[in-house]
Amino acid sequence: MAPTTSSDKEAVVVVDLRSDTLTQPSALMKQAMVEAPLGDDVFGEDPTVIALQKKVAALLGKEDALFVPTGTMSNLVAVLTHCQQRGSEVILGDQSHIHLYEQGGISQLGGVHPRTVRNLPDGTFDLHDLRRVVRSDNEHFPVSALVCVENTHNVAGGKVVPLDWMDELGATCRQLGLPLHMDGARLLNAATALDLPPARLVRSCTTISLCLSKGLGAPVGSVLAGPQDFIKRARRTRKAVGGGMRQAGVVAAAGIFALDHVYPALGRDHRLLQELAQAVEGCGSKVIRCDPRGAHTNILLVECDPSVVTPEALCERMGQATPAEVTSLGEHVIVRILPLTDSKARLVLHCDVTPGQVQSAARKLRYVIKELDSEC
Amino acid sequence: MAPTTSSDKEAVVVVDLRSDTLTQPSALMKQAMVEAPLGDDVFGEDPTVIALQKKVAALLGKEDALFVPTGTMSNLVAVLTHCQQRGSEVILGDQSHIHLYEQGGISQLGGVHPRTVRNLPDGTFDLHDLRRVVRSDNEHFPVSALVCVENTHNVAGGKVVPLDWMDELGATCRQLGLPLHMDGARLLNAATALDLPPARLVRSCTTISLCLSKGLGAPVGSVLAGPQDFIKRARRTRKAVGGGMRQAGVVAAAGIFALDHVYPALGRDHRLLQELAQAVEGCGSKVIRCDPRGAHTNILLVECDPSVVTPEALCERMGQATPAEVTSLGEHVIVRILPLTDSKARLVLHCDVTPGQVQSAARKLRYVIKELDSEC
Amino acid sequence: MAPTTSSDKEAVVVVDLRSDTLTQPSALMKQAMVEAPLGDDVFGEDPTVIALQKKVAALLGKEDALFVPTGTMSNLVAVLTHCQQRGSEVILGDQSHIHLYEQGGISQLGGVHPRTVRNLPDGTFDLHDLRRVVRSDNEHFPVSALVCVENTHNVAGGKVVPLDWMDELGATCRQLGLPLHMDGARLLNAATALDLPPARLVRSCTTISLCLSKGLGAPVGSVLAGPQDFIKRARRTRKAVGGGMRQAGVVAAAGIFALDHVYPALGRDHRLLQELAQAVEGCGSKVIRCDPRGAHTNILLVECDPSVVTPEALCERMGQATPAEVTSLGEHVIVRILPLTDSKARLVLHCDVTPGQVQSAARKLRYVIKELDSEC
Amino acid sequence: MAPTTSSDKEAVVVVDLRSDTLTQPSALMKQAMVEAPLGDDVFGEDPTVIALQKKVAALLGKEDALFVPTGTMSNLVAVLTHCQQRGSEVILGDQSHIHLYEQGGISQLGGVHPRTVRNLPDGTFDLHDLRRVVRSDNEHFPVSALVCVENTHNVAGGKVVPLDWMDELGATCRQLGLPLHMDGARLLNAATALDLPPARLVRSCTTISLCLSKGLGAPVGSVLAGPQDFIKRARRTRKAVGGGMRQAGVVAAAGIFALDHVYPALGRDHRLLQELAQAVEGCGSKVIRCDPRGAHTNILLVECDPSVVTPEALCERMGQATPAEVTSLGEHVIVRILPLTDSKARLVLHCDVTPGQVQSAARKLRYVIKELDSEC
Repeated sequence: MAPTTSSDKEAVVVVDLRSDTLTQPSALMKQAMVEAPLGDDVFGEDPTVIALQKKVAALLGKEDALFVPTGTMSNLVAVLTHCQQRGSEVILGDQSHIHLYEQGGISQLGGVHPRTVRNLPDGTFDLHDLRRVVRSDNEHFPVSALVCVENTHNVAGGKVVPLDWMDELGATCRQLGLPLHMDGARLLNAATALDLPPARLVRSCTTISLCLSKGLGAPVGSVLAGPQDFIKRARRTRKAVGGGMRQAGVVAAAGIFALDHVYPALGRDHRLLQELAQAVEGCGSKVIRCDPRGAHTNILLVECDPSVVTPEALCERMGQATPAEVTSLGEHVIVRILPLTDSKARLVLHCDVTPGQVQSAARKLRYVIKELDSEC
Repeated sequence: MAPTTSSDKEAVVVVDLRSDTLTQPSALMKQAMVEAPLGDDVFGEDPTVIALQKKVAALLGKEDALFVPTGTMSNLVAVLTHCQQRGSEVILGDQSHIHLYEQGGISQLGGVHPRTVRNLPDGTFDLHDLRRVVRSDNEHFPVSALVCVENTHNVAGGKVVPLDWMDELGATCRQLGLPLHMDGARLLNAATALDLPPARLVRSCTTISLCLSKGLGAPVGSVLAGPQDFIKRARRTRKAVGGGMRQAGVVAAAGIFALDHVYPALGRDHRLLQELAQAVEGCGSKVIRCDPRGAHTNILLVECDPSVVTPEALCERMGQATPAEVTSLGEHVIVRILPLTDSKARLVLHCDVTPGQVQSAARKLRYVIKELDSEC
Repeated sequence: MAPTTSSDKEAVVVVDLRSDTLTQPSALMKQAMVEAPLGDDVFGEDPTVIALQKKVAALLGKEDALFVPTGTMSNLVAVLTHCQQRGSEVILGDQSHIHLYEQGGISQLGGVHPRTVRNLPDGTFDLHDLRRVVRSDNEHFPVSALVCVENTHNVAGGKVVPLDWMDELGATCRQLGLPLHMDGARLLNAATALDLPPARLVRSCTTISLCLSKGLGAPVGSVLAGPQDFIKRARRTRKAVGGGMRQAGVVAAAGIFALDHVYPALGRDHRLLQELAQAVEGCGSKVIRCDPRGAHTNILLVECDPSVVTPEALCERMGQATPAEVTSLGEHVIVRILPLTDSKARLVLHCDVTPGQVQSAARKLRYVIKELDSEC
Repeated sequence: MAPTTSSDKEAVVVVDLRSDTLTQPSALMKQAMVEAPLGDDVFGEDPTVIALQKKVAALLGKEDALFVPTGTMSNLVAVLTHCQQRGSEVILGDQSHIHLYEQGGISQLGGVHPRTVRNLPDGTFDLHDLRRVVRSDNEHFPVSALVCVENTHNVAGGKVVPLDWMDELGATCRQLGLPLHMDGARLLNAATALDLPPARLVRSCTTISLCLSKGLGAPVGSVLAGPQDFIKRARRTRKAVGGGMRQAGVVAAAGIFALDHVYPALGRDHRLLQELAQAVEGCGSKVIRCDPRGAHTNILLVECDPSVVTPEALCERMGQATPAEVTSLGEHVIVRILPLTDSKARLVLHCDVTPGQVQSAARKLRYVIKELDSEC
């Protein structure tokens, strides 16, 4: 396969589906940032930060909320604030973002011991497993202090965790006397998919971390919501990890804008994702497959037959265009995607990807899949 | 079931099979303790500690060794010394003692993040799983820093991990560039069962923790063996956690005695355990079962049908004697055992349990199993 | 003293001298933020963040730099990245910001043990003290791993640490084989006061933390500069603590603007501060005093005789206006300042405080000091 | 100075004054160890450990106590158990053993931030300093959680902290709402010197760590005493750090013996130490000096004029014997001592040092001091 050599650079269509963290603030969002009243949030004086925090607290049906620079910090602050006691253990899914992608910060920095339960393909886990791993009072054991859940579940392919399971999980945690934290980085995608208010989805959760800089399109920031006294203690933890920003309203304003103007449009990303999914499934390939019904939101997992093409190789191929392909498709399309596991690649939509780009990407996917099929 | 009321206290036979940590030093062992030359081991001047450390290093084919007060400290010091880099992750079995029974100390005190692989019933784990969870270089990830294995495997029922799997594990770790630590609390039981020198079993291991106060019968102490520079650093870690004892030779002497005089006799415990196992299996019960072939060493797991009897209830029943039973057995036997999981109880033999006690326990087991069978 | 009751709210002049963290981004700074090219900085694709990092690295004469959301995180990431070894100890001034005002995060989160040397009134410390507290190699001791210095020194009143002492400190650290980190939150104030390039001031430092959100007027952010391999490792630490922001260029742009346009004007703040200092000194009061020659930059420490007025009471008085005072001064001035210690209050100037406000504050200070003098 | 060459090895008198940790268990103490009833202390079944814990609790007037292998662990467990909250800060003397000689374990392993107050020459510190460093409630600050004191104070030369200061310290801590932990490694030396029950000395203390393996002559072990619920939590901490020994009664028995038989004899060590101190002072040297009145217990600090002889050189000289010296003294005496600081060496007496050895050491000290005086 010859490397891309385009004589006409402007004609190249680049469709970047690597992550919904790639969004850029729109002109209107920037306008909101410029116009926001600001103050020093360490003194508690930034009205925009306060407004965002109140807005998210209301949206999630919790008493209070705290603005932090990143989703990783939101989860870190949550876990450390829940796990005050030495020797605390958190129970969480073995495929959860906190366990896999946050550098083990809860242990590294907070001394919290993780105990995993096996994540099922739908992002849930067996509640019997949860009950089984809860510790009794014994000096050999850590102290079970927190349960974490993720919704939508990233590694499961942006799946919306079923609402009745969430309710059951909540009931179980209450029975066990354990608080429940939700890594809701993409919670609003779940709420959109279920067509329910987010507060309904997190009714059973003590605390929730919500990201503004993923599908919502804000440049920076996450919000941690929960009970008032918890948030007060979380402020201390945030300060300790270095998350106490000054005129943070300048970025919080983008978050408010995102909640008002991008959140209502998330359904568009989900619909467009189905176009991509149908394109892949429609090929009927045995080499590259996907499950459109399992693609609940803005993430599509594409399954590769690694004996033919590894996810890395597929990503590389999607990032290039052959002359024959350009001729066949009538355009020069580059689709940037990333491998997720040994057999899966991940495609993510967001507000900056246009329907036209999605169609170009879909056409290219069909072309490449046929190419791969013909190579077997 | 009426509680035990014995008019003749002396006639009660108590067989304590809760753990091999219960052993008491024999008169001869105490004699060795009394006669041992001593010094201040913080100054490196205790000749008996030095002798024990050399002896264990030689036994395990390693350069050096370090005496510590407990097995938990031995594993803790090992993991912390291996995992010097911030954000280190240790890969270990989800049923390993370090993960389940050491209070999460590696995270709590050392900031090390655990990543588990599923333990198979024989105490091993799938080496593909191991390869799969090793981290690539990415700032989202912890740094894979260590692999741990346990032999014999406690929760698996004292199983001896197969030697060729150990060799394969060693080769895999070398390929991956990862050190391998063995929690060999009961390694000498494994060596006895395989009739091989312990050094052969740990050939692939960088470091090994060996307990003197379990089946070996010493009152206090474990030894951590490994490369000279590792042990030098481990001394620092031991000091930090408060394990730098003074005239420690007084207990180290018991360890030397145990290696010389108790280790050669471990086979006796294994043979006696088979008597117990046969007693249980011989009942042909569906309520209480065990697998004599899987009982490799001095631990017997007894499987309960929890719909008839929970492990807790079995343990309670074994700790009591009914009048009918005393009449039937011709003796008043109390057998102390502990539940291990929701469906298993654990029986452990050691040097302080006599053949006569084992026979009494076996008779009682048969009686109780029949009683339970008749109750269904 | 009657509380302020102003019939004419618009006429109240509020001069907020609590901190230089209170600055608000100017319209031009916001313009720069809006126009900055952005990308996902976790992918290393934000051109504005990269530009800021290069700019700061060049300014400080270091190989590379890293943008972080706060000064606390900058110091935390620096100390944790320097102190990789377990049992590391950092040597730092007992009046340093890291020791006093960062929640002990280096210990709390990073397990680093602080060893203090006594800060002298000029922000330095005795280099013999430094040599004396460096640890030898002994398992009872932590490992001396880092020396920290602060410039300008906050608690010392924004004092510029003498350049030749810095050079001596650097030579001492090199001799001792210890890296030197500077908390240079207000380093550019020091460079301005000395009229020297910042790189000259940090020639001896391995790493430097520089704040953009203090006197420089940016809303959010700090930069950590140092050797390339250090910064690479610091990126990992930043990710762990949750400092890896996405389109961070939107705030980094304010930092670039601040370096280009606010940094050159810092001298103005220093000159205005002398007006305040002269106002206080000119009163010749024994109750409220200050040392104008010791006020090197934008911070003025005002010494209270606590038997007459505590710093808290002075701050409260400055925050109110009596009718007599309003009549006398011809204006209703509120000056907001904060107590620093049991006997000192702190006044801080920055780009948002106008010369007119400074004159109003100076007049009010004279009035209040006379009032206090007359009360003795 | 020629190295020692003795043709008659038996004639060499070695007096080892490096530390009171060097003591060896006597025959009677070993007898007590051999005869002690034992059990598994992890199961709470070792009667000798229980007896020792009760004995120490009673001796110190506290509800309960916990046996641990070392003094470092006792302090570590105490501090970590007191400092449950994240971001805890402990206030302690800058010359305290915990701060200087325990590898910074409280930070390294427990995340506790130390804040030092300047130790005065008598081992106390200024209570105004204590009040001054206590933190107010502010998210920039750690949380003041514990005050530590040391008695006798090691670096101060085994000084007994004045009783009325202890009472004042206790009252201050109660006022401040802070618990008070005493590192009473050598508390019984203090009690002996004051001729008071130990409980009187620790009346104000919440918890106390007492070492059995220093002047008390036991080979291994320390005891942490305090309130019942504290000790219950401390058991968990002990388990986490790996201090949960099995048949620990075998060493605890030595502790009981030491309390019964060595404690009453501590006064002898103090009296003999005065002989050494008088020997040094009697020389009237300006090169080597000491303060007999400041040598309250079993530790003598000898001050060197480093321009003539460093502590290291003095220690080396004391460890050798010249032919002229042997002739003059009529015996070949080797005295082993250790340097403590840049200008001080430390001599420590204990039960294994005989009056004859002390006289030999005193004679040698006089000889060497004269030799050094004559060299100036």
